[in-house]
Amino acid sequence: MLKRHYTEVKEDAPSLAGTKGCTVQWLISNEQGAKRYAMRLFTLRPGGTIPLHEHEDTEHEIYIIEGKGLLDDSKEKIPIRSGDVLFIPAGEKHSFVNQTQQTLKFICVIPL
Amino acid sequence: MLKRHYTEVKEDAPSLAGTKGCTVQWLISNEQGAKRYAMRLFTLRPGGTIPLHEHEDTEHEIYIIEGKGLLDDSKEKIPIRSGDVLFIPAGEKHSFVNQTQQTLKFICVIPL
Repeated sequence: MLKRHYTEVKEDAPSLAGTKGCTVQWLISNEQGAKRYAMRLFTLRPGGTIPLHEHEDTEHEIYIIEGKGLLDDSKEKIPIRSGDVLFIPAGEKHSFVNQTQQTLKFICVIPL
Repeated sequence: MLKRHYTEVKEDAPSLAGTKGCTVQWLISNEQGAKRYAMRLFTLRPGGTIPLHEHEDTEHEIYIIEGKGLLDDSKEKIPIRSGDVLFIPAGEKHSFVNQTQQTLKFICVIPL
């Protein structure tokens, strides 16, 4: 069994080009013994952006921990807030913007 | 893409015998189109307990959203708190107790 606080986990810059004001922490992944899916924590600072993109084979299961923002699914801008749950199937476009003055944090689980 | 707030999701009683003061909400599962893993939200009220148990083939990836409690892995009682991340591999015993006066909430992702 592994226990650690999220603040002990290294903050990385996401690999997606055009991402701004954003870090990702791989909370649980291969290194911790996970084989089927990984849990990541994204932090999007005020003004931060994850640009529109999609993943061919990778769905997202997301829980908003803290803050507010906008999710753009390429058709509309959808307000998101703490306590919201998002399921983004593989192949669906998505982007995130934090247009507020508070930090936005969300858990995002992806297949390994 | 699905978006909903966790408060819109039905609260169920967990099936594990001996569980007290606890609800589980299946935030994302088969019904929402998930095929590989499910995201659930557990709420353990003050005095609530999930008794010691294990799962033969099912690992848990857990993020503590709110509150504090104790995780018993059958060897020791480990304090847990908001922001803690737990990886419980298949076959490892675990129980949860909320011995505090505040609600304990955690996300728990399992394979489907």
